[in-house]
Amino acid sequence: GYGRFGVLYVENAAKDTRIESRFRLNIDGSTEADGGVTFGARVRMQADDTATAANAASLNGARFYAMTGGLTVGVGNIYGAIDSMPNLYTASIGLSGLGWHNVVSNFDADSYSSTGAGRNGVEVIYEGGGFGAHVSSSNTGGTERTAIALSYTWNDWTFAAAYQDSNVADDVVYAVTVGGEIGPVTVSVMYAEDDLDQASATLAGEFEVGGATTVLAFYNNDDENNGLSADSYGLGLKHSLGGGVSIRGGVVSAQDVLTADMGVLFNF
Amino acid sequence: GYGRFGVLYVENAAKDTRIESRFRLNIDGSTEADGGVTFGARVRMQADDTATAANAASLNGARFYAMTGGLTVGVGNIYGAIDSMPNLYTASIGLSGLGWHNVVSNFDADSYSSTGAGRNGVEVIYEGGGFGAHVSSSNTGGTERTAIALSYTWNDWTFAAAYQDSNVADDVVYAVTVGGEIGPVTVSVMYAEDDLDQASATLAGEFEVGGATTVLAFYNNDDENNGLSADSYGLGLKHSLGGGVSIRGGVVSAQDVLTADMGVLFNF
Amino acid sequence: GYGRFGVLYVENAAKDTRIESRFRLNIDGSTEADGGVTFGARVRMQADDTATAANAASLNGARFYAMTGGLTVGVGNIYGAIDSMPNLYTASIGLSGLGWHNVVSNFDADSYSSTGAGRNGVEVIYEGGGFGAHVSSSNTGGTERTAIALSYTWNDWTFAAAYQDSNVADDVVYAVTVGGEIGPVTVSVMYAEDDLDQASATLAGEFEVGGATTVLAFYNNDDENNGLSADSYGLGLKHSLGGGVSIRGGVVSAQDVLTADMGVLFNF
Repeated sequence: GYGRFGVLYVENAAKDTRIESRFRLNIDGSTEADGGVTFGARVRMQADDTATAANAASLNGARFYAMTGGLTVGVGNIYGAIDSMPNLYTASIGLSGLGWHNVVSNFDADSYSSTGAGRNGVEVIYEGGGFGAHVSSSNTGGTERTAIALSYTWNDWTFAAAYQDSNVADDVVYAVTVGGEIGPVTVSVMYAEDDLDQASATLAGEFEVGGATTVLAFYNNDDENNGLSADSYGLGLKHSLGGGVSIRGGVVSAQDVLTADMGVLFNF
Repeated sequence: GYGRFGVLYVENAAKDTRIESRFRLNIDGSTEADGGVTFGARVRMQADDTATAANAASLNGARFYAMTGGLTVGVGNIYGAIDSMPNLYTASIGLSGLGWHNVVSNFDADSYSSTGAGRNGVEVIYEGGGFGAHVSSSNTGGTERTAIALSYTWNDWTFAAAYQDSNVADDVVYAVTVGGEIGPVTVSVMYAEDDLDQASATLAGEFEVGGATTVLAFYNNDDENNGLSADSYGLGLKHSLGGGVSIRGGVVSAQDVLTADMGVLFNF
Repeated sequence: GYGRFGVLYVENAAKDTRIESRFRLNIDGSTEADGGVTFGARVRMQADDTATAANAASLNGARFYAMTGGLTVGVGNIYGAIDSMPNLYTASIGLSGLGWHNVVSNFDADSYSSTGAGRNGVEVIYEGGGFGAHVSSSNTGGTERTAIALSYTWNDWTFAAAYQDSNVADDVVYAVTVGGEIGPVTVSVMYAEDDLDQASATLAGEFEVGGATTVLAFYNNDDENNGLSADSYGLGLKHSLGGGVSIRGGVVSAQDVLTADMGVLFNF
């Protein structure tokens, strides 16, 4: 798990500067059957704070899995094919993500829920020889989603494409990501479109500066913007202190509102 | 703890086929005093799914105990004398129990609660020399129950009888169970009657077929049936895959409604 | 963590005698950065019973910290400067505290919350060379509190003084405690006053009787008494059974109402 704490600034908020913190602990159980298949489950314990106060820690819904070789079957609080696409989260800024405007899916697809029950779906994941495939499906509370994502890695570059069939209008229909390394720089381009023909596109980069420091930056243009500015961009910094501890901070401007945070994240 | 996941079918349900899953983790703390008495407590973390959705994991009420030799005093979320009777759960079918129609007490007695606070009672348990005694008592929220169960094991056969004093009309008044082994077959007969003279009787068997497979079957007749059929019966299968992993499945017909499940259970 | 269970008597209560129990487990994660600073977080899992029933266990808000040498910075569910004063809890009576009438702060200051989110504040703690300083500050839900406590230990005697600035009328304004050891006796005097000029004063003692037994006693006079008797006093007993197990019991008379408890507490 990890802990993080620091300060978050949100322009024009009722309380513009506040504590930002999270406690996360993964609770895992697994065993291996005679045939070499590993069966396991995970529940997450997490405490976050919100705009007005801290929350007590809570438990999420369980994800169950059976895994052998490069093949995994997941049940319950699944990861989701689109949310697991390579490079989708490149250049996530700051201590807290600062709104995750770099993520072109807008979370309009099945994803792992850290604090709720999750989607209670089924997924099959295969990885091997540079090739990856991920199919996920869920049908809960009226929302039905099936998604498939394929990826291929060739010479430090990873190409991924996904398609989703959903009964929610602004859910992602297709998404593509391309990411790779050019010397000390990781570059990524992401694009997604939903059933209302709203597109979101991101150009993102992470730059290693010396051995312990990374600078992150992204620019995103998103049609799903409620009539506000479609542009958002961010600049972030990560600096390792060793022992799994890092200082993280960043600034994001999204729809002409500025947010910024700075703090420490420690893995344990 | 353990995890389990699979598929559950319920005839005529709004959604007749759905995911069935459970995550269970026991959190134990104990220590031994100088005199040799062990003091301990357990809280359980559990996530289940329901007819409509998965639930996030939750914690139950704690059970506290002091234990020395064959004598245990329990406080809090107690096990209950009747619910702990030997052979009461023989031939529990499938991955999920499929309604537990084999259990003649109909859960109309104090029992350990995996997901709620439990009965907050007191119990004394003795085991030694083939003899067992269990007295439990609780008084919470208007419901007052005191129960005593006695058991004796003689040549692979265990006889048990219980009596309960309760202020709830359809609570068990008395129950008897007899169970034993005839070669590879475990056979059990259970009977209980409540204060409204409603009787429930079960004939149950578990048959070892080869080294790793067990077939389970029961027939139950229960007067507490809301005017529907009093009969229920079930057929189940357990097959060990080693490493604490087993495939479990079964079919139960209860009050003319068919339920079935199949899946994998793994201990960790 | 620890478990405790026993019996609690409250004079004139609807149910005057009931089970008293608690399960407490601290969940800690920490790591050390290269520079020698330790970063960590704690969430507590706790189950208590109430006047009417037991509760299921729950999780509280996280406390985060960074610690190096004698200096600690805490964020989130903070301890609070006044609630952490030395000797404030001397002569806490019985298994359950029996109302904590010995504690002169009346909990009108920031303190660690075992079952809720806590105050989501910030605190800085220094300890070194017999000197201690603790500054805490929080601003949540309309309540703003900043407190500072200083302490000094000299020849087995510890002197502490605290001041609090708060926008809550009956919050502590200042508090002083003095405690020390005279042979086998620990003696403590505590005094606090709030913004309504209500004073609370306690004289408390803990007496070691033989190697394993401690007798505890206090007398308190508190102006914040809702027109009832200002006096409360208590007598308690702790007897170690080894292995982290102790028998604890006590009697407290507060505002002419008698409470008493007796039970076992075991650390694990």
